[in-house]
Amino acid sequence: MRRWNGWGDEATVVELPSNGQAFLAARIGAGQPLADASLAQVLAQVPASRLAAHPLVSLDAEVRVRHARGQSLPDWLAMREGTFGCFPDGVAFPETAEQVRQLLAWAAEQDVLLIPYGGGTSVAGHINPQAGARPVLTLSLARMNRLLELDEASQIATFGPGANGPQVESQLRARGFTLGHFPQSWELSTLGGWVASRSSGQQSLRYGRIEQLFAGGTLETFAGPLELPTFPASSAGPDLRELVLGSEGRFGVISEVKVRASRLAEDEAFYAVFMPSWEQALQGIRTLAQARVPLSMLRLSNAIETETQLALAGHPGQISLLEKYLALRGAGIGKCMLTFGVTGSRAQNASSLKQAKQLLKRFGGVFTGTVLGKKWAANRFRFPYLRHALWAAGYVVDTLETATDWVNVDHLLDLIEGGLRNGLAEEGEQVHVFTHLSHVYGEGSSIYTTYVYRPGGSYAQALRRWRKLKTAACEAIAHNRGTISHQHGVGRDHAPWLALEKGPQGMAALRAIAAHFDPERRLAPGVLIED
Amino acid sequence: MRRWNGWGDEATVVELPSNGQAFLAARIGAGQPLADASLAQVLAQVPASRLAAHPLVSLDAEVRVRHARGQSLPDWLAMREGTFGCFPDGVAFPETAEQVRQLLAWAAEQDVLLIPYGGGTSVAGHINPQAGARPVLTLSLARMNRLLELDEASQIATFGPGANGPQVESQLRARGFTLGHFPQSWELSTLGGWVASRSSGQQSLRYGRIEQLFAGGTLETFAGPLELPTFPASSAGPDLRELVLGSEGRFGVISEVKVRASRLAEDEAFYAVFMPSWEQALQGIRTLAQARVPLSMLRLSNAIETETQLALAGHPGQISLLEKYLALRGAGIGKCMLTFGVTGSRAQNASSLKQAKQLLKRFGGVFTGTVLGKKWAANRFRFPYLRHALWAAGYVVDTLETATDWVNVDHLLDLIEGGLRNGLAEEGEQVHVFTHLSHVYGEGSSIYTTYVYRPGGSYAQALRRWRKLKTAACEAIAHNRGTISHQHGVGRDHAPWLALEKGPQGMAALRAIAAHFDPERRLAPGVLIED
Repeated sequence: MRRWNGWGDEATVVELPSNGQAFLAARIGAGQPLADASLAQVLAQVPASRLAAHPLVSLDAEVRVRHARGQSLPDWLAMREGTFGCFPDGVAFPETAEQVRQLLAWAAEQDVLLIPYGGGTSVAGHINPQAGARPVLTLSLARMNRLLELDEASQIATFGPGANGPQVESQLRARGFTLGHFPQSWELSTLGGWVASRSSGQQSLRYGRIEQLFAGGTLETFAGPLELPTFPASSAGPDLRELVLGSEGRFGVISEVKVRASRLAEDEAFYAVFMPSWEQALQGIRTLAQARVPLSMLRLSNAIETETQLALAGHPGQISLLEKYLALRGAGIGKCMLTFGVTGSRAQNASSLKQAKQLLKRFGGVFTGTVLGKKWAANRFRFPYLRHALWAAGYVVDTLETATDWVNVDHLLDLIEGGLRNGLAEEGEQVHVFTHLSHVYGEGSSIYTTYVYRPGGSYAQALRRWRKLKTAACEAIAHNRGTISHQHGVGRDHAPWLALEKGPQGMAALRAIAAHFDPERRLAPGVLIED
Repeated sequence: MRRWNGWGDEATVVELPSNGQAFLAARIGAGQPLADASLAQVLAQVPASRLAAHPLVSLDAEVRVRHARGQSLPDWLAMREGTFGCFPDGVAFPETAEQVRQLLAWAAEQDVLLIPYGGGTSVAGHINPQAGARPVLTLSLARMNRLLELDEASQIATFGPGANGPQVESQLRARGFTLGHFPQSWELSTLGGWVASRSSGQQSLRYGRIEQLFAGGTLETFAGPLELPTFPASSAGPDLRELVLGSEGRFGVISEVKVRASRLAEDEAFYAVFMPSWEQALQGIRTLAQARVPLSMLRLSNAIETETQLALAGHPGQISLLEKYLALRGAGIGKCMLTFGVTGSRAQNASSLKQAKQLLKRFGGVFTGTVLGKKWAANRFRFPYLRHALWAAGYVVDTLETATDWVNVDHLLDLIEGGLRNGLAEEGEQVHVFTHLSHVYGEGSSIYTTYVYRPGGSYAQALRRWRKLKTAACEAIAHNRGTISHQHGVGRDHAPWLALEKGPQGMAALRAIAAHFDPERRLAPGVLIED
C-alpha cells in the first residue's frame, strides 16, 4: 500500500546506517524528531465536498487526502503534522480520453477548478489545491495506464498518460522494448507527468530527456483537443509539442502520449572512477560530454557528497580499505566519485568504456570497476525512501536542482552550496550540503544539491527554515544564469522566479497561450504562471 | 558576384556531362530551352519606391531586384522570364540589434510591411513581397554576420543572424571550433534563416538539427525584445526557443543567435556501400539508425537515384567497371547506393566504421571504401548549380522533401514518386523522379525527391506543370502522415497544407502568438500562417 504521508510503498524501508547518524550528528548536531499525525486525525479534518455527484468522481475523504499533496518538503511537513489546510473537493478517475473531455465540460458547466494529477510526485507544489470560492476537482489519470499501440518499425509506443514508470517499462519490456526514462521518482511518477513537467531520467545521456522521447499525443483543452501527430522531425513551423511539454496542466489535460521507445540493449554496465580533485573531475566530465563518448549516464559527486555517500553506505571496514587504496593511487582527501554507464551493443560498449577510461585517466581518475556502479544501479530509486529514516532520526532532507553552462557550473554550485550552508547561520544552525552533477551536456550540466538540516523544536520552525534555505538557493540560481529547474518543473514553488528566466515577452506569450486554451482560468491555478 | 537570377556565384559553373543529357533525353525527351530575360529588362520594370528616405534603407533598383525572389522553382521561372511582378520598396541593412529595433519602430510609424531576409535562399516563397496597399521593406541581416563572442568552455558561440555558412565556419574554425551545420544551401543561407526555418544540415546525425544547435538569442518584436538565455536544458515551462525556431519571420526579427559549437573533430571520412535491393537497403539504414551507431551522416539513394547519379557522374568507363564489380558481389540491377560518414575521435570512428560495415553486410551491402564518399563530400554543395546546366539543356529540375515514421516511409515515398511520375500523364509528358533518404532518426526518415521535367513551349506552361506536380506531391504528403517540410520550412508555398499537420487548435495557438507579437500583421505577411 502506498504511504499516505510520505514516499513509496509501506513495505519498502531504507535504514540509516548507525555510522550515518553519527556522521550527521558530528556535522549538524543531534537529531530533533517531531511527532507525526495519524491518518485518522487528518480524515477528521476533511470538510464536506462542494461538488455535485458525478459517476467518475470520488468524494471519499481518504481519496481526497491521498490526492491533496505532493512530495515537496512543505508537503512532507504538512502531511507529517496533519495540517493539510486544503483538500480537493473530489477526485475524478477517467478511463478514456472521451471521459476526460466529459469531465472538462462538466467542470466548465459546474464552475469547478481542475488539477490534472499523474503520480502525485511533484516536488514543486504542482497538485496542491488552494482555498477559494470555486470547488476543486483533482483529475487523476491513474486508470489510463495502458500501452495502447506499439509501432515496432518506428519504435513509437502509444500510452495512456497515467502509466507510471513500472507500468511503462513492464508493458514495453514484454515486447522487447524500453523507454529508457528513469527519473528518481520512476516507481510512482507517470508518463503524462513527465511530459507535463519536462522530466529527465538518469540515463538521459543515451535516451534523451522526455522532450526527445515525447513524439506526440493529445492535449484536451477547453478550446478543443490539440492533436499532435508524430514525425521524426519537421521544419513546418514552431514545434507544438512545446505546448504540452512543460505546460504543467495549465493549457490542458494530456489524454494520450506517444513516445519514442528503443529496443532493449544487448549490454549494460555501470562503473565508478575516483577523481583526485574537484577541478580535475570537472574537467574530465566536461571533456567526456563534449567528446560525445557514447555513454548512457554520467554522475559526478563533489567531495562532500562522496564523503557522505561513503559514510552512509554502511560497511565502514570495506570503505576504509577502499579509501586507503584510492589514496595510494592519488585520490585521497578531496576525491570525487564519478559514476558512468554504458548501454548498447557489446562492441560499442567496449569502445565507449575504453575511451572513457583513457580520457578520465588523463585527469587522474582511478578506475574501480563495476562494484560501486552495480550498487548505484541497485539503489537508484531508493534515495527518496531515506527521507523517512532521516526524519525518524530527527533530520530534514530536501534536494534542489538547476542547470547552467559549463563556464558557470562551478561558480553557481558554490553560490548554491554557500547559500544553503550559511542559510541558518543567524540561528546558529549548521546545514549539511552536498552536490552532484548529472545530466551532462556539451553546453553545461545540471547541478543537484541535497541539504540536511534540523527541524528545530516545531513544524513551524522546520518550515520557516526550509523557506529561508529554498529562497536563498532559488535567488542564487535565478540571478546567476541557472534555470529555476532542470528536471522538477515550476509548479507553485518556483513560479515566483520564472519571469527572471522567461523575461516579460516570454511570460506574455505564455499568458497569451493560456488565455487561448483556458480563458476562464480553470486549470491548475497558480501553477507555472502566477495568477 | 552572386547571380541575380539563379543559384550561387557566377564564377562557379557545374556542367552536365554529355552522357547525362542523353540519359535524360532517353527518359523524358529532348530538352526545350527557353530564352532568359536580361537584368536590364528587369531593372526597367522596377517602379518608384513608396518608402520615405531612411539612412539604413536602400531604394536602389538593382538592390530591390536582388532581394525580390528566393530560389523556389516559381522564383526561378520568374527571374528567368523577367516577370517578377512585385519588388520590395526598399531594402534595409541594419548593422546592430539597436538598428533592427529602430527599423521596426519606423515600419510601425510609416505603416510599412516588413520581410526579414537572411540569405535569400528560401525554396518555399518566404521572402517574396506581395502586391498591396502598404509599402514593403525587406530587412536584410547580411551586415550582422560577425562572431560576437565565443564561450570556449560551454562551446556557445554568439553570432549576428546574417552570418552565412562560410562566415559561420571560417570564424569558428579560426578558434578550433565548428558548428557542423551544412545544409545544401550552406554557401548562401544564414544562421538566422536556418533558425527561422528549422533547417537541417547534412551531418545532423552527429551535430543535430538547428533546433538542437540553437541555444538562445534575441527576437525583436513589435511587443518588445524576446530574450532567450542559454541553458543546457531546462524543465521550467515550455521551451520558448520554439517561438523563434520555425517562426519564419512572423513573430519578429532575429537579431542575435547563440549556437552550440563543437571542437573540430580529430578525424572524418565518408564511405559508400551498395545495397542489393531497396528492401534490404531500407532495413539496413533503419537498423543502423535505431542501433545508434555513432555516424555523422547517412544517405540512401533509391535505385533510380543511384542509376541517375552514376549516369551524371561522368567517367562512364570507370562507372561501368564499378557496376560490373558490384554485380559480381550481388549488387546488380536495382542496387541502391548508401553513403555514410564518421566524424569524431579516431578511436570512435574506427569502432563506428566496423559496426556499420558489419551491420550493412548482414543486409547484403557491398562496401566500396572512400572513393565515392570523397566525391560526395567534394560535391556536397554543388547540386544546386546543376539547375543552370539542366535549364540550359532545356530541362526543369526541382526537389521536395518530407519526413515520416519508418512504418510509413516506403508507402509515402511510393505515393510521392508516383504522383510526380504520373503528374503530367494527361499531357503525355514523362517526369524523371528519384529519391534519397537522409536525416535518419530512430523514429523515421526524411524523404528527399528530385524531379526533372520539360518546360513545354513557354514559361507559363513550365509554371503550370510545376504547380500540378508540386500540388500532387504536397497532397500525397499532407494526407499520408508526412510533414509538409522536414528542412525547407513552410513559407507561402506550403502554407495551404500546414493546417492539416497542426490541426485547428495548433493553428489557433499560432495565430494567438502572432497576434500577441505582431498585432498589426506587419511581418512576413502570408508566410507560415495564411492570412
